[in-house]
Amino acid sequence: MPKVSQDYLDAQRTELLEGARRCFAQFGYEEATVVRLEEATGRSRGAIFHHFPTKQDLFLAVLERDAEREAARWAAGSSADVLAGLAAEDPDWATVVIEQSRRRRTDPSFQARWQGRTDLVRDALLALVRRERAAGRVAASIPDAVAARFLSVVGDGLLLQRAILGQVPHAGEVVALATAALAEPVPPAG
Amino acid sequence: MPKVSQDYLDAQRTELLEGARRCFAQFGYEEATVVRLEEATGRSRGAIFHHFPTKQDLFLAVLERDAEREAARWAAGSSADVLAGLAAEDPDWATVVIEQSRRRRTDPSFQARWQGRTDLVRDALLALVRRERAAGRVAASIPDAVAARFLSVVGDGLLLQRAILGQVPHAGEVVALATAALAEPVPPAG
Repeated sequence: MPKVSQDYLDAQRTELLEGARRCFAQFGYEEATVVRLEEATGRSRGAIFHHFPTKQDLFLAVLERDAEREAARWAAGSSADVLAGLAAEDPDWATVVIEQSRRRRTDPSFQARWQGRTDLVRDALLALVRRERAAGRVAASIPDAVAARFLSVVGDGLLLQRAILGQVPHAGEVVALATAALAEPVPPAG
Repeated sequence: MPKVSQDYLDAQRTELLEGARRCFAQFGYEEATVVRLEEATGRSRGAIFHHFPTKQDLFLAVLERDAEREAARWAAGSSADVLAGLAAEDPDWATVVIEQSRRRRTDPSFQARWQGRTDLVRDALLALVRRERAAGRVAASIPDAVAARFLSVVGDGLLLQRAILGQVPHAGEVVALATAALAEPVPPAG
């Protein structure tokens, strides 16, 4: 049996996950049937489900790959870059992610499996906040957890509007306002 | 035939729409069957569908009523009040609204019917921005449309996190950061 290189296997996996992502985005989770997944990925069902025993496994693998890319963006770039990326996300894919997100609240097993994705993005976001703070771009009065939550709320709002509207008017200005907000001292609540 | 007062009719309508809202929230749009709508509203299908010929009509009427209340909040209160209200929305109802929202992008007839709701909330939001500006709480460098978009993005982010997580950690601080952001001059983008 010939050996195949790890690079080749990685490339195959990437291609499979990208095809699956397009299929989920186009048809939604429920309507992404096995036949459609075969067409979108160019793989037989045997080849697909050899690596991902169920459709949920496949979907979570796509999400995980997205999370790795998002975490890499938080790790490498500014908060403005990442927010702008969310505002420019494929609207169909954003829709599927949002639809499936709600299962985290109602389906404990799904929540447990999604946790890896959540942790990855949360850690990268916190690391960014600390980096921005070290660079003097986060006001001392704003705790890390609050700054990270604020960025994630704005990011989710951009993602939702992208899913609903197909585009977010004034996205650049909204991102600039959000990032500037962290540099200013927060007034007392009340 | 005895005359019934307008107040009585309004109260009946409110009760019907509140029952329908609970039913949509509990089961989701698709699973809110006629039988379940009858149970939740305490009305026969004949009584329900006399006023709302289809389930979509009924759903849009519930949305419209929500929009009126949201517009009234924007009209009466501060942006902080409205954002806090979105962060405290019934998570199940938030989920249904978000699920159905995406149909605005893909279903032109649904989009057209949702437009009334959109216009109502947008006008109320713009009125609030102008009021806040007159009170000196919106920086001159931020146009009305940008301030309104920023508030709607933060509001949608809070609503989405409420739907996904069931609660939004640090919601109060996030709202305070968002409202403070509008008072500050926005730095040049880039």
